[in-house]
Amino acid sequence: MRDPIRVLILGTGQMGSGIARLVCEKQGLELVGAFARRSSRDGMDTGQAIGLGHNLGFAISNDLNTLIEHSRPHIAIQATSSTIEDARSEIELLVRHGVHVITIAEQAAYPAHNAPEFTEETHWLAVSHNVAVLGTGINPGFVMDLLVIALTGVCADVHSITATRINDLSPYGPSVLSSQGVGLSPEAFQAGVESGSIAGHYGFSESVQMIADAVGWDIERLEESREPIISQVIRTTPFVTVEPGQVAGCRHTATAWAGGSEVIRLIHPQQIAPQQEGIETGDSIEIYGVPDIHVSGSPEIPGGDATIALAVNMIPRVLNAEPGLHTMKDLPVPSALLADVRSFVRADRIMD
Amino acid sequence: MRDPIRVLILGTGQMGSGIARLVCEKQGLELVGAFARRSSRDGMDTGQAIGLGHNLGFAISNDLNTLIEHSRPHIAIQATSSTIEDARSEIELLVRHGVHVITIAEQAAYPAHNAPEFTEETHWLAVSHNVAVLGTGINPGFVMDLLVIALTGVCADVHSITATRINDLSPYGPSVLSSQGVGLSPEAFQAGVESGSIAGHYGFSESVQMIADAVGWDIERLEESREPIISQVIRTTPFVTVEPGQVAGCRHTATAWAGGSEVIRLIHPQQIAPQQEGIETGDSIEIYGVPDIHVSGSPEIPGGDATIALAVNMIPRVLNAEPGLHTMKDLPVPSALLADVRSFVRADRIMD
Repeated sequence: MRDPIRVLILGTGQMGSGIARLVCEKQGLELVGAFARRSSRDGMDTGQAIGLGHNLGFAISNDLNTLIEHSRPHIAIQATSSTIEDARSEIELLVRHGVHVITIAEQAAYPAHNAPEFTEETHWLAVSHNVAVLGTGINPGFVMDLLVIALTGVCADVHSITATRINDLSPYGPSVLSSQGVGLSPEAFQAGVESGSIAGHYGFSESVQMIADAVGWDIERLEESREPIISQVIRTTPFVTVEPGQVAGCRHTATAWAGGSEVIRLIHPQQIAPQQEGIETGDSIEIYGVPDIHVSGSPEIPGGDATIALAVNMIPRVLNAEPGLHTMKDLPVPSALLADVRSFVRADRIMD
Repeated sequence: MRDPIRVLILGTGQMGSGIARLVCEKQGLELVGAFARRSSRDGMDTGQAIGLGHNLGFAISNDLNTLIEHSRPHIAIQATSSTIEDARSEIELLVRHGVHVITIAEQAAYPAHNAPEFTEETHWLAVSHNVAVLGTGINPGFVMDLLVIALTGVCADVHSITATRINDLSPYGPSVLSSQGVGLSPEAFQAGVESGSIAGHYGFSESVQMIADAVGWDIERLEESREPIISQVIRTTPFVTVEPGQVAGCRHTATAWAGGSEVIRLIHPQQIAPQQEGIETGDSIEIYGVPDIHVSGSPEIPGGDATIALAVNMIPRVLNAEPGLHTMKDLPVPSALLADVRSFVRADRIMD
């Protein structure tokens, strides 16, 4: 049996810590290092910092270059950033050291249209260093794009697609809640949308373009709207209480046109405690075509846990991939890893 | 723009004719030949035989070798057979002529466990002739295996999986109905199961093994049961009327164990006119793990139309694949082809 697959984690927030703990659970993977940008975490034992409950014997580092050289990872999972601008230098440093990269930065899930220069340069940098790079996550990356694309595979024709994801923000703390306008008055929400402080969901553009490229639609217009979800009742979470008339969340919608017709609509209302107002959470995909396809699930696939799982479950897919920059639609589907992860890696992949 | 992708169809029954008509609809594909085993169709114009309503200018042939040499296809879609024993010689002849192959033979959807010698020999034959071979279809190939696998991708752990497909046999004629025991007494159904004349669904073993290999379960036992669906009411289709107490179809179930536990259960009751007894058709996938995943859709993805679409939609995936024998879990997901099919094929694929 070959040696364990050496994994480096970048980021020790909620996502990074969850990914690191899952790496520690999986046979055939070895967590060999953890990078954090926050210098306050520099020197803290990684096992304690990620919530394992015991020491791992190595500290969190905020010197990525030295960490790579000392820990010699085969693959790194980046959970430090949402934007390409912010994620890029770390990705490039990893690639230049010959390290495969999985990033959960939303903009990197499908960068070809919004960041063509990053896409081109990262692809060829990865090719020249013989490694693969992938952006993944629940959304963008899976539930409103990859799953949609796969379901169009049973269609002889498709006229339009609507995907809806109704989730519950109750587990989230102040920074997420404020980005969705939770607790604001409708007027303050509107001002926040105009100023950009209420962002809603990150990743609609990426999901729309991934779907469009998969089926061959040339998107000529993409519009996004962010509407307040006004609570009718008192909604309470550990972090906030929203009174009737206040904003419980943001209903973010993207609509895309091709050939003069609306072809894709993605609807993602994010709010606290929807069940306190009788709203059921869930994911649904409706494809209007030949034939029509309707698939749904309730409750929604939990975003945080699913992103953690996807980041780890894609490790063998990335190790098996051709060198270059990949997207979820261009690799085989992920699967749970219930055996030694090394058994999912092609025998011709050198891992030294 | 490169020349159209030249497609040969094998089989001009319901599936083969549907695939051939869809090939004719798709920009960038050209139907260049049709093979039928039945000599009565030899010489009939292909356009008439497949229900296009106009001539295509070439006849259906029952001489595959000559047809390949004259029509020079890039890729062939085989819809002549359900079993490997029956499909194999045609696949091999195509591969030896350097033709890529998509087959809807159920046993070829995941042949590694049930036909290891075919799998090994076909893989290396395809490699040596620089072509790719794929088995696909709605089931096995998509709804009870590929989709299940993809959904496990959001799970950190999986304990067990149940997938259910409740469909309606009303569109089908005598041969399908008799293979499901429709119209029999319960006693005659039982005798038919024992004699093998009531086969139920083809492909459970393939779906179970595809899922198990994807997640890393070592299946130690696989049991199938075929139970009669006894009608409580009069059920009527254009082909048959079933009285109360008679058999309306076959409830076919597969159960698989790994590590001493039941890990996969696939449930596929196939019957005529389920809605006449208030039974809703549909597909559902339940994954018990971390987290639990529940996804369902109603009505069921229509089997015939979906298999036709998948066979055509996988054309660019097969042309882009590495040489060898592939399965749906090892290639990128299918998608509807809504632009010129040539635009989905990698530029480095020589098509001459």
